[in-house]
This record gives sequence, structure tokens and C-alpha cells, in this order.
Amino acid sequence: MKRVLINNLEAGEEARISGWAEAIRDTKYMLFIILKDASGKIQVSLDKAQNAALVKELDGVLANSILEFTGKMQLSEYVKQGGREFIPESLKILSKAEMLPIDVTANIDTRLDYRWIDLRTEKNNLMLKVQSAFVDGMRSFLIKQNFTEIHTPKLIATASESGSDVFEVKYFDRKAYLAQSPQFYKQMAIASGLERIFEVAPAFRAENSNTNRHTTEFTSFDLEFAYIDSYTDVMDLEEELLIAGLTKVKELYGEEIKRLFATDVIIPKRPFPRIKLQDLYQELNKRYNYEIPAYDIGDMNAEAEKLTSRFAMEEYGHEFIFVTDFAKTKRAFYHMRKDDVPQGFDLIWKGTEITTGAQREHRYEELTKQAREKGLDKDVEFYLQFFRYGCPPHGGFAIGVDRLTMLLLGIPSLKEEMFIFRGPSRLTP
Amino acid sequence: MKRVLINNLEAGEEARISGWAEAIRDTKYMLFIILKDASGKIQVSLDKAQNAALVKELDGVLANSILEFTGKMQLSEYVKQGGREFIPESLKILSKAEMLPIDVTANIDTRLDYRWIDLRTEKNNLMLKVQSAFVDGMRSFLIKQNFTEIHTPKLIATASESGSDVFEVKYFDRKAYLAQSPQFYKQMAIASGLERIFEVAPAFRAENSNTNRHTTEFTSFDLEFAYIDSYTDVMDLEEELLIAGLTKVKELYGEEIKRLFATDVIIPKRPFPRIKLQDLYQELNKRYNYEIPAYDIGDMNAEAEKLTSRFAMEEYGHEFIFVTDFAKTKRAFYHMRKDDVPQGFDLIWKGTEITTGAQREHRYEELTKQAREKGLDKDVEFYLQFFRYGCPPHGGFAIGVDRLTMLLLGIPSLKEEMFIFRGPSRLTP
Repeated sequence: MKRVLINNLEAGEEARISGWAEAIRDTKYMLFIILKDASGKIQVSLDKAQNAALVKELDGVLANSILEFTGKMQLSEYVKQGGREFIPESLKILSKAEMLPIDVTANIDTRLDYRWIDLRTEKNNLMLKVQSAFVDGMRSFLIKQNFTEIHTPKLIATASESGSDVFEVKYFDRKAYLAQSPQFYKQMAIASGLERIFEVAPAFRAENSNTNRHTTEFTSFDLEFAYIDSYTDVMDLEEELLIAGLTKVKELYGEEIKRLFATDVIIPKRPFPRIKLQDLYQELNKRYNYEIPAYDIGDMNAEAEKLTSRFAMEEYGHEFIFVTDFAKTKRAFYHMRKDDVPQGFDLIWKGTEITTGAQREHRYEELTKQAREKGLDKDVEFYLQFFRYGCPPHGGFAIGVDRLTMLLLGIPSLKEEMFIFRGPSRLTP
Repeated sequence: MKRVLINNLEAGEEARISGWAEAIRDTKYMLFIILKDASGKIQVSLDKAQNAALVKELDGVLANSILEFTGKMQLSEYVKQGGREFIPESLKILSKAEMLPIDVTANIDTRLDYRWIDLRTEKNNLMLKVQSAFVDGMRSFLIKQNFTEIHTPKLIATASESGSDVFEVKYFDRKAYLAQSPQFYKQMAIASGLERIFEVAPAFRAENSNTNRHTTEFTSFDLEFAYIDSYTDVMDLEEELLIAGLTKVKELYGEEIKRLFATDVIIPKRPFPRIKLQDLYQELNKRYNYEIPAYDIGDMNAEAEKLTSRFAMEEYGHEFIFVTDFAKTKRAFYHMRKDDVPQGFDLIWKGTEITTGAQREHRYEELTKQAREKGLDKDVEFYLQFFRYGCPPHGGFAIGVDRLTMLLLGIPSLKEEMFIFRGPSRLTP
């Protein structure tokens, strides 16, 4: 007999179901089991007199065990689980659970030690599905737009962009490093004749800091595309991309997110508001009496990001806002410049920067000059070569998939959001 | 004026085009440029008398430069490129190429040094697109089947399955390792209440061998799903998955693959043939006089895989064949066993094993016993914990995406196939 998902059961039809025993309740005449599978839950009702053999078999079986029943679903007005209960005929104990070592009220570090138990909650299962749908929505959009998916190497020979914050790997008789981002290789793909590429892959940062925003390993959604005229083309594409992702999430899980996370998935309107950094400074000053500290001039910081979202909502009624015209000293050497202004942007959502994007400098001489200016020309020598033999104008950006889901659902930290969190003091499970 | 893709040009309409100067031919009265973009090619024809200014600007510009033209496409029976030529009015040199340091006839190691140039050929661009489509076809199939995409950690605390062949990472004041496979974490996801999961991500192997089949980093397409009754469910799913991937490839690129790789993309019929290892040994012996060497008894080897494909084609007219009933000494400890026979399989395609799959042992006591038998119970202690608190029966497999594309297109080595190859002596570009 084929397994039937609980929500697909038809009253009176012989069926086989299997799932987690979410709860087991023993009363005088009846034994009740709430059985849960990917589709939903049902109460399995065992009459102790009629089902003596099955009840005996279930003796000592704890919640969280995996059970399989054959039998029939019947409608009953006395049952809470949607007025449906399952009357079993046979039983198979697929997996016996021990008493759980933690419960959902434990602190997050204890819960992380037993992450596979922690993830079993309806909320956490939904969180993982939402992230999957978000990525799928964005990726499907790109594939429709003729983007090609690539897989760039994570083992690299030199400590790419900045020497710090890079993990060192023992690579046979030499050293290798873990890629902090696929930036250089995305651009290499453009120089290889692919006009539009993306990658979804791990990125590694050896930052020894324990905050809600940091992790040593995260999933980066990266793209790059050629023959753009300006970085505004990049912002346009990011708007469409995020709308595609959010639309997919809302379609599949909008109601459940409302129920479990008390959050509305809002599909943003195009165009997203765009503001120059200098104008933003003035607004933040005028409205919230906020003055950017001297060492952050030409850039944003966490406080400014929070206020910027408040400004975007108050002024434009929009969750998203692009900030442009950062100082060249605060941006990577490979951002194209026009009149000394980097042709790029940050995108702020719900008080946090989720993307840095830009048109890239694709002209070898200019790029070399800009690398030299930051004292990086020797370090990025291999990368500069990509631009010597013809490379079209292009731009792109990266989005941290975990951060995106965290913000969407209002989850307080990456520890809570990631499937398995990695930090300086956390390498398990 | 918006850029128009070359294949979308309409005769007589003002347009802007941009792309690679694939070839530049200078004749007495005319300058001809073959311009190529993602959609196709066109001849740009410059009359030296009429376009004197443009021709002068193009002086010293080499093939592989990136050029942009405005002008009009016109039909002409004298032109080879589909009877279409482009008559330019203005020109912009977007990127000036130097003389190429290699050509397509260079040996593979030289070509890898300049991989971004090597990849520009029509064949290599197609190869990357085919891989992207293959993965997309398989992934879309899984998402339709309610699979959730997960992202498992690549930085791990212990040298997982086998101590050897694992890269060591300096992780702050301790050591970490790079995951050889997401196997343990895929199974953790099942214990976390997700019924069906997959991941497409890099995997790392510190194997110090330089062969066509080995690389230190590759892209692994991994899945696991719960509530299976047998490993035959796993084989069934893999059949559907590969058909979905191959169908997508054939649909998008079947004709181009025929033209450039002289290969037919064949959509296999279901079910794929399945044979027990002992029966296979007899067939190979009877048909090809092949005797498996003593040290490989209970397992396959490269020679046996080649002959097995020949057998599958001769006996069943099929490119694929599943081999089952391997010896337990030759299979991982986490494969479920029935009467001491591992409940798993290898899938052979075009003379090469592309997958090992199995139903997994999900019962804590059995699994611990099997780990102990292989002397691994201490090493995999953290993994065994996943099965103590309830875990449904499940199974799954992994496919190497690069190997799959290599076999599909008949590419001779992973060096040629991967976007950027990594081997013991190859960490660049």
C-alpha cells in the first residue's frame, strides 16, 4: 500500500500514513497520538480494548518517535484536528526516540547543540522552506532572463581582496585560501564571453567577532551581467529580482508567515526610492537630528541604516531604498568611477544593508590605476589579467541569503536563522 | 537607444549593437568586423571612404576588443552571416584587447592559465550553458516534488567519514576541515523534520592524484528524502531526476550539442535496467571474458564500469544501468543492510559510475553497530546523535555535476569541463 500524506486522506479509504508522533496521550480507555507529516497532522485514536496488541506495542514509545499506521480516516465532530481522526489497523515503529535532551525554551546556544531537534518546530521548518522558496524565486527569474549558473572555485591561491579575514587551508605542500566572495571569478566569467551569470554558493569570512550580523560561512547569491550602460541598470535588475523572490514566498507561504511570524510579506513597488548619500545625510540630520560620525563620512553605518529605513518608510512608504554616491575611499577598487564618484549603491531593507552593487571598471588601465591607488595592484595581479584581452562593460551585486530570510521573517539573529550556524566559537554540529 | 541583440535586429531599423570583435578583416575599400554577442553574429561593414572617421578610430584595434555600433542592419545576398550586414553610423570602443597570449590549439595546461580566453570558444560557452541547464532541469523537478533546498556547512569540526583526503583549515586557534560531502548534514535535515531536501554545493577532496577523474573541488548535487520503503524508491527518483535534466538540456541545446560536440542527447526510457553485482560478474565473464580481480570482489572498478555500459547497451539498448547488491565491506557504514546486503546501488552511465545511492540506516542501534564494525564509531559520534531522538527512514544519493556534463558531451577530462579546474598542482586562475 502506498503511503498517503495526511492532508490527502479520504474518509473511509484504506490508507497507510507515517510521521512523527508529536504527542502521545494516554487516557483510561483510549490512547491518542498526534501524527505529523510534511502535509499536516491527524489524531490517531486507539481503543485500548479493541487495539490491545497495538497499544501494547506502543508501550514505552515516546513522542518524536516515527510511526507508521495502516487504517482509515473518519470524520468526527469530537476531534480537534480538523474534525478528522485515524483509526489504525496495524502499526510499525519506524524509529524509537529517546527522551529529548532539550526543549524549545532552552537558550539558543544549547538549542544549537541539538540543532536537528530545534529545527523541528513548525516555525523553524517554515523558515527553511521560506529561504528555499526565496532563492528559487530569484533564481527562476534569472534563468528566464537567460542567466547561466556557474560554480566558481572556493579554494584560491591568494588571499583575494584583502589579506585579512581569510581562512588558510593546508593544500598539499603549500597554502591555499577560502574565497571570501566569488567577485573576481564572476567577472572572469564575463571576460569568458558569458553575458549574464549567477552563482549561489558558500562564502567564507575569518572574522573573529560574535555578533548577530556575522558568521564565518554564509550562502551568497551573486550575479554579474554585461553590456550595461550604467549602475542604474544593476539597480533595476535587483528590483525585479527581489520582487520575483518575494512574490514566490508570498504565494507559497504568505499566510503561514502571517500566522507563525506575525509578519506581512510585502511585494515592493517599482522603482525603489534612490537617494544620494549627501542628500541622505541632510535628511537624517533634518528629520532625526542624526550627524554621521567623522570616520564614517562618505559611508553608512548601522545607526544610519536604521534611520534610512525609517526615512524611506516615512517619505516614500517603501521598505527598500537605494543609497548611491559613496566616497571612493569607502568602496572597492573595482567599482567604476565617474568624475571620481563610484558608480554603485547599497540597498537598505528593514534597517539593514542587504547588498552592495556597482558597475565594475572593465578597462584594464583604469582598473590597474584604481588597484594601485589602494595599494592592491600586486595582490590582485592575477585578476587584472582578466581585463587585458577584451571584456565588456558589466555590473552586479551579491545578496546574503541568510540575512535576507532573517530580515523577511524578523528573526533576531543569524544563529537562529541559518540551517547550521558557524561562528568563531561554533563549529558543531 | 536601447541595445538590441544581434539576432533580434530588424532590417532598416536604427539600432545599437555591442559585442566581441571576433574577426577584423581589412580590404582595400572596406573594413569588415564580425561582431558576436550572446544571441549570434553579424558582419559590420565599413566603407573606408564613407566611414573614414570610424575607420580611423578602429586603427590598431585588435580582434577580441568589445565594440558598440549604432546603425542599421540590411539584407544582402553577398554576405555570408545569414545574408545580413550592419552598416554603422557611430562607434564606441568599449574595451581594447591586447594580442592574445594563447590560441585554441595550445595544450590544456597552457589554456587553463588563460582559462577566460579558452572559455570564449563557442564550444566552451555551450558547455557551461549545458551544465547550467542540466542542473536547472533537475532542480526544477525536485522543487515541483516539494523538495526544500538547504545549505549545509562546509567548515566542519571533525574529519568526517574518513580521516584521509580531508583539507585542514586554520580556524582561529583551532583546526577545522572542509566537508568532503554533505552526507551527514543532509541526513540531519531529515532528522530535523524536512521530508525532502537537496543541495547543490562545492565538495572538497584532498586526493593527491592527477587523473581525468579527480579534482580537489567539485560541485555536488545531493539529495535525501524520507519515508521510503526501499532503495528502489531512490533509484526510481534518480531516473525521473536525470530524465528531467536531460530533457531540459535537449530542449534548449540539443541541436547545438549535435553540431558542436557531434553527440545526441538521448532521453532514457524508464525503468533503467537493474542488475545484481553477482549476476553482472557472470555476464561480464560470459560476454567479454572479464574476471573481476580478487581485491575488487564485491565492488566495481573502472574496467568493469566500461564493460557494464557495453553490456547495458547490448542487452537493453540503454545508456544507463543500476548495479545493486555490493558487498558490505565495500560500502559506507550508513547504508542500510538487509540480510547483510547493503540496500544501495551504483548508477553507471557511458562507462563511468555517476552515483552511489542507498537507503540509509536510520535506527540508532543498528547504525552505531555498523559504524563500530568499521572502527568509525568514535569519529562519527556527533553524527550518530542525529538518530537518537526519532528519524524517519530515508535514502538519497549524490551526483557530480561536472562529471555528468563531461560524460554527456564526451569531454575528455574534468580539466576541460570545469569552469575552473582545481587539482593538487593547480590553484589558478
